[in-house]
Amino acid sequence: MMTTFDPAENLAALIRCPSVTPAEGGALTALQSMLEPLGFHIDRPVFTAEGTPDIENLYARLTGTGPHLMFAGHTDVVPTGDLSLWKHPPFGAVIDNGELYGRGAVDMKGGIACFVAATARYLQKFPDRKPNISFLITGDEEGPAINGTVKVLEWAKAKGEKWDASLVGEPTNPDRLGEAIKIGRRGSVTGTVIVHGTQGHVAYPHNADNPVRGIMALLNSLLIPAYDQGTENFQATNLEITSIDVGNPATNVIPAKATASFNIRFNDTWTADSLQQEVSRRLQEAALNSPFRQGKAEPVNYELIWGEDPSHVFLTRNDKLIDALNGSIKAVTGKQAALSTSGGTSDARFIKDYCPVVEFGLVGQTMHMANERTSLRDLENLTAIYEKFLEDFFA
Amino acid sequence: MMTTFDPAENLAALIRCPSVTPAEGGALTALQSMLEPLGFHIDRPVFTAEGTPDIENLYARLTGTGPHLMFAGHTDVVPTGDLSLWKHPPFGAVIDNGELYGRGAVDMKGGIACFVAATARYLQKFPDRKPNISFLITGDEEGPAINGTVKVLEWAKAKGEKWDASLVGEPTNPDRLGEAIKIGRRGSVTGTVIVHGTQGHVAYPHNADNPVRGIMALLNSLLIPAYDQGTENFQATNLEITSIDVGNPATNVIPAKATASFNIRFNDTWTADSLQQEVSRRLQEAALNSPFRQGKAEPVNYELIWGEDPSHVFLTRNDKLIDALNGSIKAVTGKQAALSTSGGTSDARFIKDYCPVVEFGLVGQTMHMANERTSLRDLENLTAIYEKFLEDFFA
Repeated sequence: MMTTFDPAENLAALIRCPSVTPAEGGALTALQSMLEPLGFHIDRPVFTAEGTPDIENLYARLTGTGPHLMFAGHTDVVPTGDLSLWKHPPFGAVIDNGELYGRGAVDMKGGIACFVAATARYLQKFPDRKPNISFLITGDEEGPAINGTVKVLEWAKAKGEKWDASLVGEPTNPDRLGEAIKIGRRGSVTGTVIVHGTQGHVAYPHNADNPVRGIMALLNSLLIPAYDQGTENFQATNLEITSIDVGNPATNVIPAKATASFNIRFNDTWTADSLQQEVSRRLQEAALNSPFRQGKAEPVNYELIWGEDPSHVFLTRNDKLIDALNGSIKAVTGKQAALSTSGGTSDARFIKDYCPVVEFGLVGQTMHMANERTSLRDLENLTAIYEKFLEDFFA
Repeated sequence: MMTTFDPAENLAALIRCPSVTPAEGGALTALQSMLEPLGFHIDRPVFTAEGTPDIENLYARLTGTGPHLMFAGHTDVVPTGDLSLWKHPPFGAVIDNGELYGRGAVDMKGGIACFVAATARYLQKFPDRKPNISFLITGDEEGPAINGTVKVLEWAKAKGEKWDASLVGEPTNPDRLGEAIKIGRRGSVTGTVIVHGTQGHVAYPHNADNPVRGIMALLNSLLIPAYDQGTENFQATNLEITSIDVGNPATNVIPAKATASFNIRFNDTWTADSLQQEVSRRLQEAALNSPFRQGKAEPVNYELIWGEDPSHVFLTRNDKLIDALNGSIKAVTGKQAALSTSGGTSDARFIKDYCPVVEFGLVGQTMHMANERTSLRDLENLTAIYEKFLEDFFA
């Protein structure tokens, strides 16, 4: 394997490695063989933690002068799903009608393939420049994300690495290349509410205490009123109740317990702490003022259990970084990219603790679906955008 | 086995038959051998239905002149539960400190034992009278109640039987003998609400439709406002949500479906039909006006499925019957019994379609529990009440 200036060839090589998370599948080795000829020093740290799979990672470093740019991403991919739904084999990298098919085509082997090609082109174009560039690539983004980016960052920092900026190559564009840069992400907290009641016969509710009444009152208080109306850069904070479970098959029995889970995606009105306090406050108040208590005096008897590991909200306020990316997108596509903070989490949530981070990659439409694919034109244009970005960033 | 005038001896004989529903356990045969010497003609109809156990029943008839009184009840009992919790064997009929222990002691072999003794005493006291008395006894009151009382009534009616009044010997007294006669029962309807949403990622709620939001809005409308404030003879109609189930283990996924079950115990403000219409109306309105729809225009997409077989509300308005029972209770215990309509259903809900029906029996405190038992004094007093009632009823 040799580096190529063609992102489609790079991507085809990566797709042919069946790196379904947590398997390395040859993908990091393929990437290594592309980066070594460009002068990168390669490390392949493996991290382990009890109860999770061992994970292979790759940290590639081109050492030079000036600011240090980290390109970050992952070579692991989600499973293929039902093979019969695929027009072409998911690890076949077949080109059909100007589109390259394969699991990971857009999420996000495509972004890596383009950044490799862009780096090769940049280094060829400016043979005298010695930029500081690193690739931080994990095999644990689609998995539990425990032995991946977060540990590679710690490991590299311990080696003395410092970064001035990071570009994550996740597919940020909903429909067309150039639509959206991600400059931050909402935070995420997860909780479980358990209400303890007293079992009994439905005909004698005064001898029982129906926990469903209690949990209804508590959950109503979590849904309304709205937490905020959104902020300049973020959409409104949103809570979804993801499950309510009682498991009582007997329609003449009042159950003893009801459980509900919820997730909140929150904006910069809140920190994870302040939001958890708000949730606790709402539940306490609702427990005292339930409209469903049938005249019972005692408050609703409940527990609130927070999920481990909230994701913190963040917003990148580095104009130079954003402007360089924006300008490159405009130059190649003619589009003014939206500065978005919507959607799910990504490994950017870990990187933001080390340096300003933005995200821009391919069109995400087919990610995680059968027939994941990207147009060859998008691959070429994304490579051009990345190359122009490198020129501006290191200018 | 011979009839005895002693209710405790009759009860001990019945308790020693392990007639855990649906087993006959020898209990109906024991009862037959008590009633035949008193001149009763015995039928033992067995009824069957697909998907339910075959059930043995007993219909005993003493033919005479004047009004026809049916004593109704059941010899089947609920399971013993944990045997280690019993002070005496549940089928041992041990007398300890003036109390007779055994499964069915109060629910309701005790009532049967007392009515047999009362009938024997009455017939001995008035050898010239020829009363019309029947025993309608099932082995399917604690089970599905499909092959029991409801079918014996149809079968007997087809034979030409007609009744002027019925006394059910269920344990109606909460704490002390003489406290309460049941002169009616609330009705009962059961329903299931299923809300269909659209699965999706919690970070993209606009691409999904969370059915938990929908079911919360629907269930809120079922709980408030109250259905009524109760009526002269009945407590207020009450709805209990008995289960809510989603079964979604993924806290980052909006589920596709939510299901809830509810049961309503209703008074004579309603018929089963009018109440079901009210529930349907509330759900339709809530589906259109959910406060949790996140600006979605479409109403909540739900199904309402009614449980088979609502129990209809009824109230016995036969003053002669009630007064005779009331007077007997007063004469024996000195107490003025409350005319109650509270609590769960009983086979009286089937009998009320054939003749006026009231319920009076032992103290229910230990029913369905370990160490079910009755005091010998209560057995004697209930027998005296029943005997006095027979005298008044046939006077």
